[in-house]
Amino acid sequence: MSEEMSRELKDISFILRQYKAGRLSHEEAVRELNGGCIEDLGFARIDHARVKRQGFPEVVYCEGKSVEQAAAIVKSLAARGGNVLASRAGAEFFAEIKKILPHAFYNEQARMVVVINEKPVVDKKRYIAVITAGTSDVPVAEEAALTAEVMGNKVERVFDVGVAGIHRLFASLDLIRKANVCVVAAGMEGALASVVGGLVDKPVIAVPTSVGYGANFGGLSALLAMLNSCAAGVGVVNIDNGFGAGRLAALINKMR
Amino acid sequence: MSEEMSRELKDISFILRQYKAGRLSHEEAVRELNGGCIEDLGFARIDHARVKRQGFPEVVYCEGKSVEQAAAIVKSLAARGGNVLASRAGAEFFAEIKKILPHAFYNEQARMVVVINEKPVVDKKRYIAVITAGTSDVPVAEEAALTAEVMGNKVERVFDVGVAGIHRLFASLDLIRKANVCVVAAGMEGALASVVGGLVDKPVIAVPTSVGYGANFGGLSALLAMLNSCAAGVGVVNIDNGFGAGRLAALINKMR
Amino acid sequence: MSEEMSRELKDISFILRQYKAGRLSHEEAVRELNGGCIEDLGFARIDHARVKRQGFPEVVYCEGKSVEQAAAIVKSLAARGGNVLASRAGAEFFAEIKKILPHAFYNEQARMVVVINEKPVVDKKRYIAVITAGTSDVPVAEEAALTAEVMGNKVERVFDVGVAGIHRLFASLDLIRKANVCVVAAGMEGALASVVGGLVDKPVIAVPTSVGYGANFGGLSALLAMLNSCAAGVGVVNIDNGFGAGRLAALINKMR
Amino acid sequence: MSEEMSRELKDISFILRQYKAGRLSHEEAVRELNGGCIEDLGFARIDHARVKRQGFPEVVYCEGKSVEQAAAIVKSLAARGGNVLASRAGAEFFAEIKKILPHAFYNEQARMVVVINEKPVVDKKRYIAVITAGTSDVPVAEEAALTAEVMGNKVERVFDVGVAGIHRLFASLDLIRKANVCVVAAGMEGALASVVGGLVDKPVIAVPTSVGYGANFGGLSALLAMLNSCAAGVGVVNIDNGFGAGRLAALINKMR
Amino acid sequence: MSEEMSRELKDISFILRQYKAGRLSHEEAVRELNGGCIEDLGFARIDHARVKRQGFPEVVYCEGKSVEQAAAIVKSLAARGGNVLASRAGAEFFAEIKKILPHAFYNEQARMVVVINEKPVVDKKRYIAVITAGTSDVPVAEEAALTAEVMGNKVERVFDVGVAGIHRLFASLDLIRKANVCVVAAGMEGALASVVGGLVDKPVIAVPTSVGYGANFGGLSALLAMLNSCAAGVGVVNIDNGFGAGRLAALINKMR
Amino acid sequence: MSEEMSRELKDISFILRQYKAGRLSHEEAVRELNGGCIEDLGFARIDHARVKRQGFPEVVYCEGKSVEQAAAIVKSLAARGGNVLASRAGAEFFAEIKKILPHAFYNEQARMVVVINEKPVVDKKRYIAVITAGTSDVPVAEEAALTAEVMGNKVERVFDVGVAGIHRLFASLDLIRKANVCVVAAGMEGALASVVGGLVDKPVIAVPTSVGYGANFGGLSALLAMLNSCAAGVGVVNIDNGFGAGRLAALINKMR
Amino acid sequence: MSEEMSRELKDISFILRQYKAGRLSHEEAVRELNGGCIEDLGFARIDHARVKRQGFPEVVYCEGKSVEQAAAIVKSLAARGGNVLASRAGAEFFAEIKKILPHAFYNEQARMVVVINEKPVVDKKRYIAVITAGTSDVPVAEEAALTAEVMGNKVERVFDVGVAGIHRLFASLDLIRKANVCVVAAGMEGALASVVGGLVDKPVIAVPTSVGYGANFGGLSALLAMLNSCAAGVGVVNIDNGFGAGRLAALINKMR
Amino acid sequence: MSEEMSRELKDISFILRQYKAGRLSHEEAVRELNGGCIEDLGFARIDHARVKRQGFPEVVYCEGKSVEQAAAIVKSLAARGGNVLASRAGAEFFAEIKKILPHAFYNEQARMVVVINEKPVVDKKRYIAVITAGTSDVPVAEEAALTAEVMGNKVERVFDVGVAGIHRLFASLDLIRKANVCVVAAGMEGALASVVGGLVDKPVIAVPTSVGYGANFGGLSALLAMLNSCAAGVGVVNIDNGFGAGRLAALINKMR
Repeated sequence: MSEEMSRELKDISFILRQYKAGRLSHEEAVRELNGGCIEDLGFARIDHARVKRQGFPEVVYCEGKSVEQAAAIVKSLAARGGNVLASRAGAEFFAEIKKILPHAFYNEQARMVVVINEKPVVDKKRYIAVITAGTSDVPVAEEAALTAEVMGNKVERVFDVGVAGIHRLFASLDLIRKANVCVVAAGMEGALASVVGGLVDKPVIAVPTSVGYGANFGGLSALLAMLNSCAAGVGVVNIDNGFGAGRLAALINKMR
Repeated sequence: MSEEMSRELKDISFILRQYKAGRLSHEEAVRELNGGCIEDLGFARIDHARVKRQGFPEVVYCEGKSVEQAAAIVKSLAARGGNVLASRAGAEFFAEIKKILPHAFYNEQARMVVVINEKPVVDKKRYIAVITAGTSDVPVAEEAALTAEVMGNKVERVFDVGVAGIHRLFASLDLIRKANVCVVAAGMEGALASVVGGLVDKPVIAVPTSVGYGANFGGLSALLAMLNSCAAGVGVVNIDNGFGAGRLAALINKMR
Repeated sequence: MSEEMSRELKDISFILRQYKAGRLSHEEAVRELNGGCIEDLGFARIDHARVKRQGFPEVVYCEGKSVEQAAAIVKSLAARGGNVLASRAGAEFFAEIKKILPHAFYNEQARMVVVINEKPVVDKKRYIAVITAGTSDVPVAEEAALTAEVMGNKVERVFDVGVAGIHRLFASLDLIRKANVCVVAAGMEGALASVVGGLVDKPVIAVPTSVGYGANFGGLSALLAMLNSCAAGVGVVNIDNGFGAGRLAALINKMR
Repeated sequence: MSEEMSRELKDISFILRQYKAGRLSHEEAVRELNGGCIEDLGFARIDHARVKRQGFPEVVYCEGKSVEQAAAIVKSLAARGGNVLASRAGAEFFAEIKKILPHAFYNEQARMVVVINEKPVVDKKRYIAVITAGTSDVPVAEEAALTAEVMGNKVERVFDVGVAGIHRLFASLDLIRKANVCVVAAGMEGALASVVGGLVDKPVIAVPTSVGYGANFGGLSALLAMLNSCAAGVGVVNIDNGFGAGRLAALINKMR
Repeated sequence: MSEEMSRELKDISFILRQYKAGRLSHEEAVRELNGGCIEDLGFARIDHARVKRQGFPEVVYCEGKSVEQAAAIVKSLAARGGNVLASRAGAEFFAEIKKILPHAFYNEQARMVVVINEKPVVDKKRYIAVITAGTSDVPVAEEAALTAEVMGNKVERVFDVGVAGIHRLFASLDLIRKANVCVVAAGMEGALASVVGGLVDKPVIAVPTSVGYGANFGGLSALLAMLNSCAAGVGVVNIDNGFGAGRLAALINKMR
Repeated sequence: MSEEMSRELKDISFILRQYKAGRLSHEEAVRELNGGCIEDLGFARIDHARVKRQGFPEVVYCEGKSVEQAAAIVKSLAARGGNVLASRAGAEFFAEIKKILPHAFYNEQARMVVVINEKPVVDKKRYIAVITAGTSDVPVAEEAALTAEVMGNKVERVFDVGVAGIHRLFASLDLIRKANVCVVAAGMEGALASVVGGLVDKPVIAVPTSVGYGANFGGLSALLAMLNSCAAGVGVVNIDNGFGAGRLAALINKMR
Repeated sequence: MSEEMSRELKDISFILRQYKAGRLSHEEAVRELNGGCIEDLGFARIDHARVKRQGFPEVVYCEGKSVEQAAAIVKSLAARGGNVLASRAGAEFFAEIKKILPHAFYNEQARMVVVINEKPVVDKKRYIAVITAGTSDVPVAEEAALTAEVMGNKVERVFDVGVAGIHRLFASLDLIRKANVCVVAAGMEGALASVVGGLVDKPVIAVPTSVGYGANFGGLSALLAMLNSCAAGVGVVNIDNGFGAGRLAALINKMR
Repeated sequence: MSEEMSRELKDISFILRQYKAGRLSHEEAVRELNGGCIEDLGFARIDHARVKRQGFPEVVYCEGKSVEQAAAIVKSLAARGGNVLASRAGAEFFAEIKKILPHAFYNEQARMVVVINEKPVVDKKRYIAVITAGTSDVPVAEEAALTAEVMGNKVERVFDVGVAGIHRLFASLDLIRKANVCVVAAGMEGALASVVGGLVDKPVIAVPTSVGYGANFGGLSALLAMLNSCAAGVGVVNIDNGFGAGRLAALINKMR
């Protein structure tokens, strides 16, 4: 299939016209209309069209998959030449990947494996601020930051500026206000998202973390706080979902 | 029973000595040791000793009581000459009280009926700051403020200074920092308690309010946020419990 | 204070320089550094600086405020000449506003009162798609759409395209894919947010609605589903928070 | 007791007639009317009548039982000559069973031990589609599939077709639509059950899985989503209950 | 469009062939491939294809819709000549429908409006048993029974046979055991579903009801009990979802 | 059927012998073995055997039943000559009953209708103490007390002795300790059950009430507290379930 | 202190008289009135009066205590010559106790250490039935049974008679019905408590167990089911609280 | 910067005057107004101003931080010469600290590392009573006690006086009543906080602990009980938050 066809893969009109013109057989047309570009590994169906549909290939979520399964998926994605990101990845899994893809690297704090095949182009004037309330929130923030960076974004890290010492936040306010998007990772009462949300005029992606104990209930306190933020302009992702926050921030930062 | 005896009512040694000395009969000694000073209305046992034991008479919680029951209790308490406070009181109940105790007054926002028999002495140099995040939190804050005032405390109200516009808070920071105790009433994400807690070196009593909707779950979001405050020095009371916050602040403000 | 000063109100360097140069008195400098521009109504402190800080004036949340309180706040905001938006507003409140501000209008489905003083400039080529799963989700979606429109955005409404009849969604896919941002309002199991999230390469703002019954638990089912979306690029706001979704979508749609 | 009697064991009329005719003693009649066919191991009472009453013998749930207890139960069931299924079984338990019943086999992914004594007859024209949203849901799906197979059903596996890449689902739609019953195993937001439910005209058994993290709360998000499915025709079983789903699908697939 | 085409509406191959043969225009082909047969009322998109796809037209869920909206949808569905079912319908809504469709009738207990345009054909030898634990569960059971009847099924009602007096259940056991499918509606502890599930060899659809108080938490106790049923072969629907249970039972009862 | 037969109704041996002896026809034997003594009103099956099986006839729970349904059930039960108790009964329902059964009476606080046909015999030396923490818990306590009284027990009421003024409890300790069983009704934090449980050597039936607000969550706080009581010998019933507590206390008080 | 004094330890009148008569010093009288008989180990205060007040010494709950702490408490209790029961005790703890008290024994399933110093007198005609739904519930049931036995009660064990095979229950019905009290331990949906409650005329103590998975939520499903039992006469204890159930059953079984 | 300046660090007027007078450069003024005194370690920003603002330096919460991170923070704080407290600290972390700061000590029960650089001055006449319900609550209580002691307070420990043996509490009542503040740590049903709250006229800080099992839900039962305390004057902190309770008690005890 030509490069051009591939670009319009999801365009039904296009497929129909190719079919009528005889450039696609009946079988090819049915497959394309039914989704196309899916590689079936038995335990996984790899959606190679995602990069066209959503601007970045499928990200491999390693939890609940065996090392063999996750590695097979990464290998299949890398074979197409794009960049690959595997989240919630353990050291054992990285060791396996390293054997197959020697240029892969591992960010231990973020627990992510990254395979860069095409260096992303970065607009240095537009950056995402990734902010944490405390030091314990850093792993989640790193997951967000790394995700955004791999997707071609500049990131500024502003860590440990929680509201118990709000002066720390104000000391970094300029850096935060000039960001295009803010990601705020906070556990416990998650108040930082509201405070940042009230100080900037840009979208804020709030990531509750499971940092805390007791009535924190695994991140529930921060999650509810962020959902109930009195500051408008705050979108929330799942507890500890640094990847999701980084992905959403990247999408927003790319808007022109 | 003499004034002095009454003051030491709960001192077992004292009772024993009075009994041995014959100043209390066997029956009186048993009653005193068993608690003393309880008036039984059938549906309620009024604890007239509470003023001695805890510095303020029983406060009448009107919810779940009939107007007749609540009025009978207020009447019984007022008959001893102390001040009386009835919380979660409706207008109909106040009308009933007004008939019996014409000097009673009603604070509609706080939904409290107050009967002042002895004007409380107030130390004007020591005050409690009662702070709210928004206008909708004011009824709960008024319950706290009125409770503290009736118990003889000066109160400064600082309303609608929530974190969505944190500059409003900073504009009042001096007034807040000079308070002896702070009461912070906030709904939604309740972030204000943490922010205030991080800015003052005095005890903060946090009252989550049920203001909000959706994932607020009737005040749960603010409650959890306040319990998980990253700022130390914050004690939390029940959702919408303005009375409890005012009472606790009053106890603290009286310490010397 | 001059127009220009006002624009840089939050710039501490600027204030310091003005102060050193004698253009601000000591008292003015303290006030500005402390936040400035706050009007105190007793029960509310209006943050007139918000329009500078966040690009749109404070939005009045009417729940839990008396008609008088809410009206006073709207009046105070309108007096500065900007547009005003009041959410969760009842008909009685609108009647009150109509007396003061005859050009106000009321969107009954969205339960919002709008006062337009400056017609917003709209970029017709960039639009927000506001999508619902069912007809019962329309009020929440209208709150989002109206908010975005008042803030100067073009909105395309795509209502009742939930996953029980997923062909309805595909029939509108072109309109959805060409949007700059998608707002998806869905109750019950909230699956639509994930499905849309998997089909577009733009940010998706998911609004769980309280539509449903039983194990819906007031919108909890849709909320949890959206937070756990397997599609990346989805940010979630509070249950039934159409305003928040519209505001966040507006912020994103304005990015260049 | 004769073969024939055994078949009508639960028929009270039959027992009464046997008793009146003297073919059952008074004691035997009482025992039969009281349930019959129970083998008491002390820690377990094996219900050998279940195969008659419900078409398949008791399935051994191994969690919370010692290896010895579970093995004794399997042995007792196998002694009657029927097929035996043990769920949530560990490798150590299988080793134990293997010693007693050398023809037993172990499906590691499904964590099930199977003893086939009578090969089930399978109608190849009627099959159950077992569908998963992701690779991590496969173990639960395998438990369902294996259960159905041991109970004499043909199963088609359609794995990793979740809504984040909905084209993968459409590519398998024919296979899914021709199934007699669908089992859908999905974690996270569990949206796949609704989407499948909206596309087929057959019963859908939805199995929420505990795949996910954070606000997934151990499978709660998928569970609530599936219970609130806007697609009718969906029945839900417990989180991770592959066995229950397989059993219910088998019952439905056997209907004529 | 011919009758025949309509029957194969969802067959992509068919559409492609019609298009190639020139029997469908390019625009028609795109529309059909995109879902076809959707009528857009603005606030609702009616999925007229559902009857083909799922064997019964869309059922109108009235909650959260205005009387006008719901009536417009019913009218649109009835205009195609099929039977129409509207659930959670109030008397006012029925009055409105009655004006437009005089042959509509209302089942007050089930709160359903029914419009019969084609009398369903019923196989009298195959029936669904609809069972309740108590009298208070009857409205939910009636919703299930009526749904199944309108969809062409024979229903036997077995009401008020809960486990507190389990002899009532045994007295009806024959009727229950001969059913093809059982629907069990129970509130409080919902134990009846497990007991029935243990006594029959047919699928059981369990409907938790919100009957009860206190730690019932709006039906949560029965819901959790049913999901955790120790009897296999039980599928659960949402709390009070009589319609869903009836629909699922109808799908199962139609299997041959 | 003779009086004697009726007494041994559930004795399977007896039925078998009667059947063999020809005193029961085959049909009668089947019916008796299947439960017997059930009156079917369509919407309700009245279990007239319960008085034999459990010592008191079925109690009518009125919530969720229409006035007509509940009245029909009461009438049917009363027709057998036993005492009847209807709980959660409104005034309108009582008016209806009064017409049919003029000797019925209504306890408004307990919301119970009572029909006494046989005056219960009471052992005055053995009593149940029904204790409340506050005045607002009295309705639930009255439901328990009345239930126990109608079932033939002496009750001592000890109301409003909650732990905030624990001396009130100690003043009544003798009366409490001499009881045979204690019922403790308490809302809010429900601490009274533990305190009483630690002071007596008799069974304590704890009834959490829904008295309270905020983090009380409809009685959840008291329920959890009572379930977690550090005092052994405490059994808990549902929130606000005065009837259940009274019934259980009555069963215990009857033991010899 | 004499044997006799000790018996009336809690009688305030008695203490007062002893004091007046000079048989108790002032200090002794204060101590006795303040509770008496407490041994302070620093980390624990042993309540040696409990055996007098509640008929059995304090039971040692080992969880959260170090082996040293728990052993010191057991030693202190055993030194008084009574029987001692330690619950949730590990093997390491037993090894420690065995060194000090060689006649101690360990019940591994119940995880209890028992020290018998006075053999309890048992009334063989009155027994407690301890019933389980499944084999996995046996450890909890054993904790209940052992507790009751050590406290001098005869226990009949009826294990694995859950409702999935209800005939197993009926086969043991005679044994169950003749019991004085029933303890029912069940996990999953906990239906057995209601079924037993409906079949007997004696108190039923229901113990929810944490047996199960998924929507069992650690025993919540069984707990809620038991609290909502439609059968009256059921008292519930905490999840997995075999000790509490055994203790309450023992108290009830001792009533005359 | 001089000692004196440092004391008034947060006084904006002072900074402005210093700046105008040329004693602070423009850059210094901006930094001070922006918060000052923050040391940035990359993963942490140490707020050295906290000791000025809140009377005690930042306390290091070790959970979620690597040993290296936590040690670096402790080192940085200790370098300023103040006392340092590290909570939730493991033995490995202490070993690391010991190397750097040989005078550090470790309280194993409280899991705290303490570095005393300036011996705190203690007012022996004013003390905090730290009270526990049981022995298992002692670790949390020790965290509170140690925190208060390091902050310069006298502490009296009253352990294991829970309500199951309330006489133990009364035996220590004098000690408790003479305290200036009470901290009450209790798990299970947490009733002790209410009982103490009803007996004293001083503030009570309630700390729910996670001691318990089953329906304790990780401390939820005690937390809810304490929040719903019927005794006024009780402030609650997070589950197991001994540090927070000690800190709040210290703040209150310092009031004059």
